[in-house]
Amino acid sequence: MERFDLNILGTGSALPTTRFNPTSQVVNFRDNLFMIDCGEGTQAQLRRMQLKFSRLSHIFLSHLHGDHCFGLMGLISTLGLLGRTGDLIVHAHPDAGRIFRPMLDYFCAELPYQVIFNPIAPQKHELILEERSLKVYSIPLKHRVPTCGFLFEEKPRPRHIIREMIDFYQVPVRDMNRIKEGEDFVREDGTIIPNEKLTRPAESIRKFAYCSDTAYHKSIVPIIEGVDLLFHEATFLEKEKVRAKQTMHSTALQAAKIAHAAQVKKLVIGHFSARYTDLNVLLAEAKTIFPETILAEEGKCYPV
Amino acid sequence: MERFDLNILGTGSALPTTRFNPTSQVVNFRDNLFMIDCGEGTQAQLRRMQLKFSRLSHIFLSHLHGDHCFGLMGLISTLGLLGRTGDLIVHAHPDAGRIFRPMLDYFCAELPYQVIFNPIAPQKHELILEERSLKVYSIPLKHRVPTCGFLFEEKPRPRHIIREMIDFYQVPVRDMNRIKEGEDFVREDGTIIPNEKLTRPAESIRKFAYCSDTAYHKSIVPIIEGVDLLFHEATFLEKEKVRAKQTMHSTALQAAKIAHAAQVKKLVIGHFSARYTDLNVLLAEAKTIFPETILAEEGKCYPV
Repeated sequence: MERFDLNILGTGSALPTTRFNPTSQVVNFRDNLFMIDCGEGTQAQLRRMQLKFSRLSHIFLSHLHGDHCFGLMGLISTLGLLGRTGDLIVHAHPDAGRIFRPMLDYFCAELPYQVIFNPIAPQKHELILEERSLKVYSIPLKHRVPTCGFLFEEKPRPRHIIREMIDFYQVPVRDMNRIKEGEDFVREDGTIIPNEKLTRPAESIRKFAYCSDTAYHKSIVPIIEGVDLLFHEATFLEKEKVRAKQTMHSTALQAAKIAHAAQVKKLVIGHFSARYTDLNVLLAEAKTIFPETILAEEGKCYPV
Repeated sequence: MERFDLNILGTGSALPTTRFNPTSQVVNFRDNLFMIDCGEGTQAQLRRMQLKFSRLSHIFLSHLHGDHCFGLMGLISTLGLLGRTGDLIVHAHPDAGRIFRPMLDYFCAELPYQVIFNPIAPQKHELILEERSLKVYSIPLKHRVPTCGFLFEEKPRPRHIIREMIDFYQVPVRDMNRIKEGEDFVREDGTIIPNEKLTRPAESIRKFAYCSDTAYHKSIVPIIEGVDLLFHEATFLEKEKVRAKQTMHSTALQAAKIAHAAQVKKLVIGHFSARYTDLNVLLAEAKTIFPETILAEEGKCYPV
């Protein structure tokens, strides 16, 4: 199976500590890197995790709070020093261009590549990026400023040919692609050979959803339904749920409720408040509702 | 003796590595913290070194290159989250306000304290800050953009009273401050008691000079003459001196020449290029000219 991994670079909340970096993740899809959020120190984490700067072409910013984007300038600058020439696309709220462009013009005037800001509408669920084998959609979230998560979805693959049946029915080469796409084979005499006789199903497509920062927000459930891996923020414990609501963050229990309602396969929780020295209390709380929960760990890589 | 220390937070050059943070130092003068430069990740280093955020009121930026100031936004934001109320003064090239203010307005709109940009003229040697016991001067340097170093100078202290002599000559209390400042004592009958009979000299004043980034620039020598501690950049080895000149950086040998010419007491070299895996080659080179050289080490504290 081609690589489709989630790398956790930073999983702290707004107040940085010596234990956590601010938010950043990198999706590795077939050795192309897609970054989600870029808190201060992200480029140092990229290096520590030996992720290749040259494989990164897209950065998605969930929202314009400092702990999710103060590493952007340094990363852009370093990519320039490393001699990058290909475009870098930053998918973010329309304000991002307006805010970062003057800094880029000042600090990175001689950048050997283009930084392109692709303005996205965080309140909409829509297709943001389509590559040959991957689609990325926005997921509208509920936070103090316009915020969206991101759904990474593999495109369906062609079905597998059953070689002996192809030979037996003498399917011509020109029909092969259509048959891989699921069409039946119509012989010259008009008889139909159903596709299932000629092919085996493709592997099912894999999906990863990133939901941070957000208050408990049920309306994301249909969008993330059945994903293989869900990252959902769990800043607080349920006993801090008043504080969670005020600051528009989620509790571990709420993250688990979303995972359960969406019937996802696995839940990773993160964006931890600095107040918890032992994260196992957050994990234990989430597991009461959704046993397939794990803690996000910086420096670790999780297959989708 | 009251505390006067230099803390090295980051001492890499433009390209961050896993070994070095970008530039930042903190002068601790009587438990007041004065930051020089603020590269990405500086706030994390402050925490690691257990330097108190609340004791920091002044940040000096040598120049507006990203590796010397991309940590500023994150630090300002964190100081706000920590509930700071006192002003923070950022002494920097006049462009700093124009560049950072729009970001501050956007990302730190609800900051509970004031950030004040004090525009300085990097091409002049002048007094930037005067506190009760400390003066900070700019040191014009030679780099690709307007750049200055900083000279931290203790103010002269009062001389020490010799108690028995004061009693013997019956010096009245009202004359005491003048005598501590070095004046002679004039008795009522007109006879003069010379100050040296009444007092012992104060401790000599201590000085620290920070010179980075800069090409080899002899005209700083009179300004930094005799300082107790000189931090001078040494990005390259002498065999890379063409590259040093092009990029307007110094070699270890050049740093040592400056230290020697200025007859400083101790030289700390830093701002190392990522190309050197063994820094001892830089140290050895500097020591050929100036034996009292040491390597800047991140996380370490050096008395001035």
